This record gives sequence, C-alpha cells and structure tokens, in this order.
Amino acid sequence: MGRAAAEAVLALGSPPPGMARGAWLHEALRRAILSGRLKPGTRLPASRDLARQQGVARGTVVAAYEQLAAEGYVVGATGRGTFVARDLPDDLLAVRPASEPPPAALPGCAARFARSPFAGATAPVRPFRASLPDLAAFPLALWTRLAGREARRLGTALLGEIDGVGYLPLRIAIRDHLALARGVECDVGQVAIVASVQQALDLVARLVLAPGDAAWVEDPGYPAARQVLQAAGAQLVAVGVDGQGLDVAAGMVRAPEARLVHLTAGRHAPLGHVLSLDRRLALLRWAGVAGAYVFDDDYDAEHRFADRPLPALKSLDGGDRVIHAGTFSKLMFPGLRLAYAVLPRALAPDFADALSLTARHQPQATQATLAAFMAEGHFARHVRRMRMLYAERAAAFAAAGRREWAGRLVVPPIMAGLDVACRLAGGFDDRAVAAAALAAGITAVPLSRYAVERSDLSGLVLGFGAFEPAGIADAARRLGAVLASAERQPADQPGCSD
Amino acid sequence: MGRAAAEAVLALGSPPPGMARGAWLHEALRRAILSGRLKPGTRLPASRDLARQQGVARGTVVAAYEQLAAEGYVVGATGRGTFVARDLPDDLLAVRPASEPPPAALPGCAARFARSPFAGATAPVRPFRASLPDLAAFPLALWTRLAGREARRLGTALLGEIDGVGYLPLRIAIRDHLALARGVECDVGQVAIVASVQQALDLVARLVLAPGDAAWVEDPGYPAARQVLQAAGAQLVAVGVDGQGLDVAAGMVRAPEARLVHLTAGRHAPLGHVLSLDRRLALLRWAGVAGAYVFDDDYDAEHRFADRPLPALKSLDGGDRVIHAGTFSKLMFPGLRLAYAVLPRALAPDFADALSLTARHQPQATQATLAAFMAEGHFARHVRRMRMLYAERAAAFAAAGRREWAGRLVVPPIMAGLDVACRLAGGFDDRAVAAAALAAGITAVPLSRYAVERSDLSGLVLGFGAFEPAGIADAARRLGAVLASAERQPADQPGCSD
Repeated sequence: MGRAAAEAVLALGSPPPGMARGAWLHEALRRAILSGRLKPGTRLPASRDLARQQGVARGTVVAAYEQLAAEGYVVGATGRGTFVARDLPDDLLAVRPASEPPPAALPGCAARFARSPFAGATAPVRPFRASLPDLAAFPLALWTRLAGREARRLGTALLGEIDGVGYLPLRIAIRDHLALARGVECDVGQVAIVASVQQALDLVARLVLAPGDAAWVEDPGYPAARQVLQAAGAQLVAVGVDGQGLDVAAGMVRAPEARLVHLTAGRHAPLGHVLSLDRRLALLRWAGVAGAYVFDDDYDAEHRFADRPLPALKSLDGGDRVIHAGTFSKLMFPGLRLAYAVLPRALAPDFADALSLTARHQPQATQATLAAFMAEGHFARHVRRMRMLYAERAAAFAAAGRREWAGRLVVPPIMAGLDVACRLAGGFDDRAVAAAALAAGITAVPLSRYAVERSDLSGLVLGFGAFEPAGIADAARRLGAVLASAERQPADQPGCSD
Repeated sequence: MGRAAAEAVLALGSPPPGMARGAWLHEALRRAILSGRLKPGTRLPASRDLARQQGVARGTVVAAYEQLAAEGYVVGATGRGTFVARDLPDDLLAVRPASEPPPAALPGCAARFARSPFAGATAPVRPFRASLPDLAAFPLALWTRLAGREARRLGTALLGEIDGVGYLPLRIAIRDHLALARGVECDVGQVAIVASVQQALDLVARLVLAPGDAAWVEDPGYPAARQVLQAAGAQLVAVGVDGQGLDVAAGMVRAPEARLVHLTAGRHAPLGHVLSLDRRLALLRWAGVAGAYVFDDDYDAEHRFADRPLPALKSLDGGDRVIHAGTFSKLMFPGLRLAYAVLPRALAPDFADALSLTARHQPQATQATLAAFMAEGHFARHVRRMRMLYAERAAAFAAAGRREWAGRLVVPPIMAGLDVACRLAGGFDDRAVAAAALAAGITAVPLSRYAVERSDLSGLVLGFGAFEPAGIADAARRLGAVLASAERQPADQPGCSD
C-alpha cells in the first residue's frame, strides 16, 4: 500500500527461564530494533504469523506490538501492518554491534530494573501527552538573564564542588516554599536536592530496606516507583486505592510488618484522589508503631485549581516517619532536572552519604539559578500564573470530552494537575484504544498500565496542561473518532497490529 | 589560651554490635556536631580523658579526632586541644532534632554506604588540596556567554525532557574527543552522560553483580569506589599495585571468578603508575574468558605533561568488556558535575534503563553548553592550556619539596595529573602528619587511607594544580616545619589532638 518494506525474518530465540513470554517478546524486538537488526521502515510479521512462529498466543504478540508502539519504536496503521518507526531518535540507533550481543544474562538487578518508562520521555509533544507543563509559558528569557547574573556574581565560586545535598540557598528557598505552600516545617539540613524523585526513592529504598522486606505500593500506582523498589530488593505489596486514597487499613492487614510505603498522598497518580485526613493519621500511627518509613511523592499537588491544597502528609508527621519528595519538572520544566526530598532527621545524614557516594549532586549553576528564581518571587508568581492557565485548559478538556466522546470515555471532575485518568465504558480494551489513538497521532496512556493486581481498570490517562484549547478540541475530536471506530470492532482484534 | 570554651560533657552511649569502636566513635562525634549538641567552638575532651571514659585505647580517640579534623568538623592546635570548628558550613548545622535521633539501625545498605568521602568536598581551597583544577583559569565569561547563546538558540526545546543517557550533541562531542585523545572508538549509543564516575560505577555494579560476587579493587586504590562496590553487595578482593599498575596475575590467582574489576589504568589513583601494555592485554584476555567486566576510571589521564598519553584501556577492548568512564570535574571544573561512561554494547541498553529509572539525567542546559564548548574547540584549547600550566606547577612543587622537606617526604617524578603521592621517610605516621599539617593550615591526605590490606604505605597525597608557585613554595615551607617538628615527637603522640 505505498510502503515498500520486506517483512522481517525474525530469529528471536526463546525466553530465558522465569521470564514471561510477553515481556521477553517485547524486549527481544526492542533489542533487535536498537541493534539495527530490524531497520527503520521494516514491516514486522503479522501478529498471527509471529504468534505461530513463536508458539505464543496472538494476544501476546499484539500486546508486545502495542507496547512498542506506545514507546515509539514501531508505528502501525489499520489494515496496513506494523513497521519499525522511521523517525526513531538517532541515538537509539547508534548501538550497532559488529556481532549480535550475547543474550542479556546479567546477574545483578538488571532483570529487576526492567524497562525504564522514561525511555519515551522524548516522545512528541502533542495531545494528550501526560505530566507535561506548558513550556512556551515559561519565562525563559528571565531565567537565562538570572543564570548569567548569578554566574557574574559568584564568579569562580560557581565552579567549585558543593555539598552533596545541594546548594544551600536553594535548600533554604525550598524550605521556605514548603512551609508556605505545603505546611511542611523542616530544617534546611533535612532538605536534599536530587535529580529526580526517582533518585530520592532509590536511595531511601536502599537505605531502609533489607532484601525481601515488604513495601506497600498503591494499586493502581506509579509504575516507575515500583520498578525502583523492586531493584532495591523490596517485596511489593499492592494496597488498593479508593475515593479517599490509599486503603491504609487494607495495608495493615496485608503487610503490617512493611518497612516502607510509597504513595502519592496529595494527588493520587493517576486517579487524582487526595488521601483523607483519617487515613493520613492512621498511616502515620501505624508507621510510628511499625518503624516504617513513608515516601510521599508530592508530584503535582500545587497545581490545584479551585480550593487551597491540603497541607502535605509531612505536615502531620510528628514521629518523623515521612520522606516528602517533590519535583520542579512540572512546576517549572522537565529539562531542569531538579527535585528535592525532605528527610526525617534520623535518615538525613545517611541519605547525604548515599547521595554523594552514588551521584554527587546536580550542577551548581543550575541550582544557583533556581535559588535566585525562587528567592526573588519569580517561582511563586509563575506557579500562580500556571495554575490559572491549567485550570482553563482543564475546563476546555472536560468540555471537549463531554462533546466528543459520547460517554465512551468519561472525564471525572478535574481538581488539580496536568493530566487526568478518564474511564472507558465497558467493552473497551484500554491498551487497544491507546494503540489506535497513537496510530491516529494522539498520545494516551492505558490506565491498566498503572495496575498491580487490579484487573478492573480500563481508561486513558490524558494530559491537557501543555496544549492550547484549540489543539485540545481538535485532538478530542480525533480521539472521538478513534473511540467510535474501536467500538465497532471486537476488542480482542485491534486493527492496528497486523 | 585565649579560646574560652567549656569542655564538652559527652554521653555517647556505646557502639552497636558489630561496629568497630573507632568507626563508631567518629560517627557518634560527627552526629553530635551535626545535631548541634556539640556547638561550634566547644572544646572536645582530651583524647586521654575520652579514651578512659569510653574504655577505648587512646589511639582510637586520636584517630577519630584526626578523621574529624581532616573532614573539617574539628580543628586542633598543638598543646591547646581540639575544638568543634567555628566555620562549619552552615548547612551542616541545620539538623537540630528536638530530641536525639534514634541510633542508626537501618537494615538496608546504610552500613555499607558508610561515610561519604565527598562530605569534605567543600573544604577550603588551599594547598595542598588534591584533585582540584585551577578554577580561576577557567574561561567563565566565555562559558556564560555560550550558555546564554544556547538558551536563545534552543528556546523552549531547552526546557523539555531529554533521553536518559544524555543530550545527543554532547554524546557525539565526547565520542569524537575520546577517539582523538584516548584512542577509544565507539558508537554514540554506547556513550552515556552521568553526574559522576561514581554514578556510573554504582549502576554498573548493580547491573552486573549478584550479592557476594567478587570484584577486584586496586590496593591501594580509590576508597569511594570501594564503598560503592560494597553498597552494591560486592565482595571486595584487594589486588596489589606496583610500578606497572594492577598486578593482574595476582588477581587471577586470588579471584579468577570475579565479575568486575575497578581500576585506574591510565594513571593509578593515587600512585600515578600507568598500567603496562602486557598487563592490559592479560587483563582483557582474562576478562573475556571469565565474562567479567572491567571498569576503568580514566579520571585524570589527559593532564599528562611530557609524553602523549597512552591510549585508554578501552582502545584495546576487542571483546567489549571495558566500561570506560571519565569526568569533566578535573578537565573543566567540579561544580559542573558532568561525567560520562562508554558502555560495552551488551550493557548499554540496561545501563540506559537503570540510569533513567534511578536518576533521569543531568540538566539539559548544562549539557548543551558543554556540547557547544566542545564542538567549537574551546575544550581542547582549555585542556592544552591547563596541561602546560599544571606542568609548571608540578615542577614548582617538586622543586619546593626537594628544598623544604629534607628527604622526610619524597616527591616522585610527576608525569601527569593535579596531585601526587609523596612517600614519608621511615618513622612517620602519615595520619598524624596529615593531622598536624591540617592544624598548620595545610591540607594533606594520608596515603594509608587508600590502602585495603597493605600496611606498608605511609605518605601524603598532595595537590598542586590549583595553586600559584608562590603559594606552593610558602605551603611547602610550612609543611617542612610540620615535618621537622613531627619528627621530634614520638609518632603515637601527635600534638594536635588534646
């Protein structure tokens, strides 16, 4: 059909013992693409044929293709087949081994690290990519001016090494901001600057968990957090989430001896619920008795539209059990790569050691620029301005969804944030819908990808923060067409995968 | 003697089971200082008294005081006692718990992470601090101009997330530089940008080691590398070093089944030897057969004064077993916090996943500025210029040492780098001399601190790169006085510690 491409002849071998066939198939295909063995534009075998060839269910192949599509490695079009993406980022293609690399048999954490979901971070900026702030609205000229000014002011002092936990004026600015905006009272010695909330979680997990220790995770919850906890040797315990957030009582029944809890108390990822006060108190009481630590990823609680945000969980933390972590990726811009953690006093010195041993720190100049941006009021002003902008976009998104999706995809009330989990009506398979949306040029994350044990979740996590209302309306219309067409097909035969 | 300070009454408790008394005493004192219980200016008990009070040998107390002094927590002056430093960095003092924190009983890697040697990174810039480039010689104005230009050129593209392994133009610039300067031929897909060589080592260790796997480390060798390997669960195997570098044959006898080797092939840290060609070939042959990986920290091989640097170990690596890592901290400035690793092809995808899961990446703007700095020739020019500057300073240092140290401290031929390991004549205790030097305002690292099993090492690692010849001459004179006075005292009663 216009695209000439020989079908790939694949010799993928077979999965190593203990590896699920679906995960293995995805990984084997990804490596074949990365190594250049499957070249851009190559047509993949029809899912039916590959399933037969590998002796797996066709659904397994379809799911692997869909995951590759969501990650940008392959593109599919209804009735035309699945192709290795022609516009793969150059750097993905650079590993071209002279001979085939040996099969991955790394004995360390490799298997537990698994695939990073951030590999797709450079995916196209288009509706409805989640977790993305509006970059065009950021005052870049002001930022650049401050960076130059700080460089001139600090001179060679800017070039030296700093304390591993971060540039002191930035830590002071964050402490002051958290007191005001999140009700968190702490000493600056408890504040550490990190590259990401993931980094803080990785270090905390390595510090407080012995191999096999139980850690509660939200179900549904943020997959990358689970991956990091597993890499640190945790035994994950899925704890349900309802309208009041994490079901603390269920956690206490399932794993009363857990050593660590990961949650998103201020705004559940991805469902958006706020952990209720009763549950906050119950969680902290239990943590005090159990000697457990609670890692609260306060990732996007400040973009709250109507009401003032509830103070963070850490504000109630008399027993000093909570690690309060947050990022500037959503409040500022993701390329900044600055985040912070507020550590319990007993954990702060060990965290500082672990951080400076395993990473050192983020560049001093970047920290100094952010410190000035915060201390001089630009940060608070920017967050205020963006909160109004995102509220408008949330309203535009909700209106467009009501208009275009005819109840097939339901937008809940949007109270905060840059994205929202919308539920699909019965009969839709959210992975199939997400793959079909991708083929139509719309980014959507299947809600089921956040599930640990739950199998009743079907929806799409959609971002609205980075897009103009006109773009939102247009994409909503196109997604409406995808939904209408997906509904006419049996959910187990998505048209895009062979 | 002019300094009014009540002697601290210390209730330190007793060491937890399994912890060495010396390490515990150091940590207990450090925490008392960090918590504010021991205030700046407070005089510590005489080592004799504290030893009696705690039921430990006096040498144990002296050693703990010396370590605290080397880290900047305390200062001592001959015959006047040891005091909590008055000029502690503010941020060290900020953790002031309402009540005493519970004793550290973290079940994870905390004990293995141990103390970070980088806590002293903000120590004063004065002779003979090691590993420090000359910050005043860095073209900061040019750098700041490039940063502003890149921000204007890239606009909002600068604000987005980038690939977890780093900004592609920077990775290309590094690949090109390594081909030219280090003989390393690799694809850009093998190049990952990290915050530090420590971060690359941490991730490689977690990927390739199962708990208890053996890893060779140089003896003497870089202590922070050992700490990271231990935190990853490695069983360290000390392998000796002689004039040809790592004794590969000894490693093959001691631990032929090791999975990882850490070494500094281009310029041994701290002795300065270059790994001989025979040993390079033997190491790579063994690694290929054993399936082991070799982590080469090429930390400062490019500051080579007389001859052209030998190509890096990685240039011989036909079997793709070598991780070649390097940092810009010494070639540019340490506040930059950019380093890189060249990964074997089979390891690159897993490393990329692990890096982006546990850290994400360094700020995009910083990477873009360095990419421009390299691509436009400023980097090569700067390294060339600094190589000449450091050669002059090495000569000034060697001449001053010959003049002032009267054979008590011997400067070997300095071929490369920013610092040098000088041997002390018999009868000197290098930790005592380093502590006495510190009291005289001179920074010196005892060579014995680098030892794993060796007990025959006594010397000082001294840096010369960051200091003008006049400052070097003055400090050499003062260090000469310290040496002359230390020689007159029995080595087990350093005058500075009570």
